Amino acid sequence: MVTEASPAPVSVIGLGLMGAALAGAYLKAGHQTTVWNRSAGKADALVAQGATNAADIAEAVAASDVLVVCVVDYAAFHAILEPVKDALQGKVIVNLTSGLPDDARGAAEWASGTGAEYLDGYIMSVPPGVGLPQTLLFYGGDADVFAKHEATLKVLGGNSIHLGADAGVAALYDLGLLAILWSSLAGALHAYALVASEKIPAAALAPFAEQWITHVVLPSVKGAAAAVDSGQYATSVSTTALNAVGLGKMVEASKAAGIRPDLMLPIKAYLEQRVADGHGEEALAGMFEVIRSPER
Amino acid sequence: MVTEASPAPVSVIGLGLMGAALAGAYLKAGHQTTVWNRSAGKADALVAQGATNAADIAEAVAASDVLVVCVVDYAAFHAILEPVKDALQGKVIVNLTSGLPDDARGAAEWASGTGAEYLDGYIMSVPPGVGLPQTLLFYGGDADVFAKHEATLKVLGGNSIHLGADAGVAALYDLGLLAILWSSLAGALHAYALVASEKIPAAALAPFAEQWITHVVLPSVKGAAAAVDSGQYATSVSTTALNAVGLGKMVEASKAAGIRPDLMLPIKAYLEQRVADGHGEEALAGMFEVIRSPER
Repeated sequence: MVTEASPAPVSVIGLGLMGAALAGAYLKAGHQTTVWNRSAGKADALVAQGATNAADIAEAVAASDVLVVCVVDYAAFHAILEPVKDALQGKVIVNLTSGLPDDARGAAEWASGTGAEYLDGYIMSVPPGVGLPQTLLFYGGDADVFAKHEATLKVLGGNSIHLGADAGVAALYDLGLLAILWSSLAGALHAYALVASEKIPAAALAPFAEQWITHVVLPSVKGAAAAVDSGQYATSVSTTALNAVGLGKMVEASKAAGIRPDLMLPIKAYLEQRVADGHGEEALAGMFEVIRSPER
Repeated sequence: MVTEASPAPVSVIGLGLMGAALAGAYLKAGHQTTVWNRSAGKADALVAQGATNAADIAEAVAASDVLVVCVVDYAAFHAILEPVKDALQGKVIVNLTSGLPDDARGAAEWASGTGAEYLDGYIMSVPPGVGLPQTLLFYGGDADVFAKHEATLKVLGGNSIHLGADAGVAALYDLGLLAILWSSLAGALHAYALVASEKIPAAALAPFAEQWITHVVLPSVKGAAAAVDSGQYATSVSTTALNAVGLGKMVEASKAAGIRPDLMLPIKAYLEQRVADGHGEEALAGMFEVIRSPER
């Protein structure tokens, strides 16, 4: 018997690694789940778990009022949905495709023209994290639409956050966190390469890296947010000038160890620019002012 | 009455922000503390807390068997101690000056010629962290010397670690952790600049950055250590090729936001090199192989 509290039927469009994980989470949570993929053969495992494989995109759209789309890029999103645009009135499109803020805004505008509601989301997890209570998803779009479908959205991750009405805001936050992941991981691999040059395994450094990230990096990242927002870069503990000298030594030591210094070069340049601008006695977080300024 | 269990007299040579913090920790722990600085006037606050201000470096060396040195660089270390080298027999030099592994090895060799014992240490904290139980210090040098003075060393930080007999190893670990701090912080500032371009304060992103660092970055850094040590870069969740495309979008989005993409360029180049080398389907940690390989 279907009541208002029953799980809403959901169609999952796009069955890559992530799309398949999304459909799996809905099946596990008891939603009537229809799946569709542009190329065949991706649905078999999900059908075995109870999913309905739509014969075409029209059938997938017709099957559910909630359409969860996770395809390779926004061009694919448009290519797939444009042919069925007349069937989207009254549907909610939950677009979990990766792209840039303006891609998301363009898709929202397009969806609005079809009479569909639209949310643009980013899954801040690898596929095995989909469906866990702590998994973080960002959403941008109409707050009422998010509220109406919140229970259905939270099947994909308990930590689903509505950031604002701008459809592009989730893509922006995603970019921000990816910047942190990529730079931190590259920094750790630089560190592992440094110790490897002396035949020390990464596993010997890793426990200290973990302590360091928890007790030094995290507070620095949090403290930098306050500095950036206030524009106050006073410090009594670690100046930009001293760190600029340290970066010079890092580059020298990396070359001496036979490893590429490339990752350290822009950081060194940012700090040197900051010193040249007269802010050598201020905190490292002042680098923000160089990053956000146009090239000189 | 002085017994074997009494705190050892300590001389602290160099009274910059960090040296003053070191002397303060010894005073607080009840050590008879002598201080000396190349330029005058730095000792006053410490003398008020009970320190003895040595009239010259010879007096500072004569006052204690444990000599804690924290000066601007290894050149200063040599310039200060060379004139008193005949008075160093039987002393232990605890050199907490910052530099490169080969600087440390050179200082150890020099100290050995004077008949002094030598430990080369790095304080993985800003000055206000000196003396706390959780504060991490790395040491390289003779294990017996470390063991003999462990209680005295731990006054400066409860988490004092002897890494190995090589006097350069602490400098190497220090470089590794600094690589992680600088790249992570620069990445966070890049993220703050991205959201600032849309008038979103850093404080709005910071709580998510904190969750992300704890739940995604830390496991990635730990997982990368195992991958690097084994040379096994298989992944079922996030390929180098996909991330290389993502880095391209990051550079594009950064430019579109009017901020400098510089930090992202070497990471993009590393991933593209990895893809060109035929490892596009492997994990991001494979970047290590590019970083440690000579320039091509």
